[in-house]
Amino acid sequence: MNQRSPIIGVIGSGQCESSIYQLAVEVGEEIAKRGAILVCGGLAGVMEAAAKGASSAGGLTVGILPGPSTNRANSFIKIPVATDMGQARNVIIAHTADALVAVAGGAGTLSEIGHALKIGKPVVGLQTIPNLEGVYYVDNAQESIERIFELI
Amino acid sequence: MNQRSPIIGVIGSGQCESSIYQLAVEVGEEIAKRGAILVCGGLAGVMEAAAKGASSAGGLTVGILPGPSTNRANSFIKIPVATDMGQARNVIIAHTADALVAVAGGAGTLSEIGHALKIGKPVVGLQTIPNLEGVYYVDNAQESIERIFELI
Amino acid sequence: MNQRSPIIGVIGSGQCESSIYQLAVEVGEEIAKRGAILVCGGLAGVMEAAAKGASSAGGLTVGILPGPSTNRANSFIKIPVATDMGQARNVIIAHTADALVAVAGGAGTLSEIGHALKIGKPVVGLQTIPNLEGVYYVDNAQESIERIFELI
Amino acid sequence: MNQRSPIIGVIGSGQCESSIYQLAVEVGEEIAKRGAILVCGGLAGVMEAAAKGASSAGGLTVGILPGPSTNRANSFIKIPVATDMGQARNVIIAHTADALVAVAGGAGTLSEIGHALKIGKPVVGLQTIPNLEGVYYVDNAQESIERIFELI
Repeated sequence: MNQRSPIIGVIGSGQCESSIYQLAVEVGEEIAKRGAILVCGGLAGVMEAAAKGASSAGGLTVGILPGPSTNRANSFIKIPVATDMGQARNVIIAHTADALVAVAGGAGTLSEIGHALKIGKPVVGLQTIPNLEGVYYVDNAQESIERIFELI
Repeated sequence: MNQRSPIIGVIGSGQCESSIYQLAVEVGEEIAKRGAILVCGGLAGVMEAAAKGASSAGGLTVGILPGPSTNRANSFIKIPVATDMGQARNVIIAHTADALVAVAGGAGTLSEIGHALKIGKPVVGLQTIPNLEGVYYVDNAQESIERIFELI
Repeated sequence: MNQRSPIIGVIGSGQCESSIYQLAVEVGEEIAKRGAILVCGGLAGVMEAAAKGASSAGGLTVGILPGPSTNRANSFIKIPVATDMGQARNVIIAHTADALVAVAGGAGTLSEIGHALKIGKPVVGLQTIPNLEGVYYVDNAQESIERIFELI
Repeated sequence: MNQRSPIIGVIGSGQCESSIYQLAVEVGEEIAKRGAILVCGGLAGVMEAAAKGASSAGGLTVGILPGPSTNRANSFIKIPVATDMGQARNVIIAHTADALVAVAGGAGTLSEIGHALKIGKPVVGLQTIPNLEGVYYVDNAQESIERIFELI
């Protein structure tokens, strides 16, 4: 096998307030600065923000989309993957990422965290669903990515 | 459309201690006694127990299996559905059930709860992962099914 | 494992002319008469016809649906399974059935035949896509089911 | 939406003889030379050959893997996507690609062609399963990609 770049997943809601959006942009930037590939759900909100951050720092961005068409990816996704499998695409993100950062998020993010923990992928949480066993909670974007790179 | 029987999902781990097994048997019995179809993940532990309970009370049992073969279903599954989609089968259980009961469980159950809440399916929790927003926590098998039937 | 009923898949288009519909009804009847469970895609056309035939002969009918809701199943489906996975549900039908009958059909049926052959499930063809290596072509409903039961 | 690179799928068997391997290498090269992204199943045989060709010509290569781990990707895959969904990953390739080239292949390729045609994606065939309605059959690698770019 060639030496492949690490792949970091960023998960979170498709709608978010601006402070969370900014946080996800920073997470994306940190991922790209370290030469890792970003994988996310490819839509709006936290997914868009992380892709925007990674893209602005010159990184590769992969969006695993729930719908049938690559056209629905946000404009910062370089590699759109259209699954037409709805929420089951969350499982693909968990398997594809070497580790994941959860930024805020609701029930969809909860499912994603569950899948990741089930298969033993490290999950770092940033202002996300509290008190989940197995999640490493951190306080800011930089810390999230430092922690991620310790864990993979 | 014909008048279809309600479909109740039971989710939980593939390994469990005997007190949890017994609890899931009772949940399965209650489901069948009320004429509902049981859907579960089709394997061992809580899934087997619920299917055993439902089966003993004359109910139909459906197992949505992660692997490629119907042969892996526990012996109380009347209708095995082989997906070969691993954890993505959890999404199918969430879409198929009208409501779900979580009995104990770990990360896989967490993912299932996340998927169910995401699509608006009621989730009742019995000795399961605590403090999840949107889950109706109850104390015993009978109460879980009473609550389920109020919710659907 | 308990002694489970055979599961026979019927695949074909969601729209069909009346002669094909009638053919699929007969296939469904033959399946149920032999005590097998019918699995199909759960929608209209050939899927509905086969479920109607099986149902009228007292058989169990399972519909593996592409969409998110069990409400979209045709009215002859006893056990609707909602996947929200679009065409990927075809793979589930191939894994769940012990053998499959293709009745007429187009590109979707072609994909289903491909999946079934790939995993070694026998496929019997009735007025379906011609000249496919590995498909057992037959001339009528009764012959299709006789052949199916020889093959499983 | 930004102006995204075209995505071309190459499908075919995981084992193939050397003349087919060479053909798939050439197809991959042509794809990359035209600035398109290659998507394939990420494993050996035709998938590896196409990725090798695209990679040697400086192109991006995406492998949609059937198993749970990105480690199973061939060494020419830049972006591995691990689905753990077995054959259902074929559906994802069909949705992700703007058009597909089938190089030789068996039942798995047949399923892939069926899915692509079902959703209206152009399919060009090179020494593949003959006589399929809707497939554009061509004679060599260069012609396959010329045809692909006319069709998308």
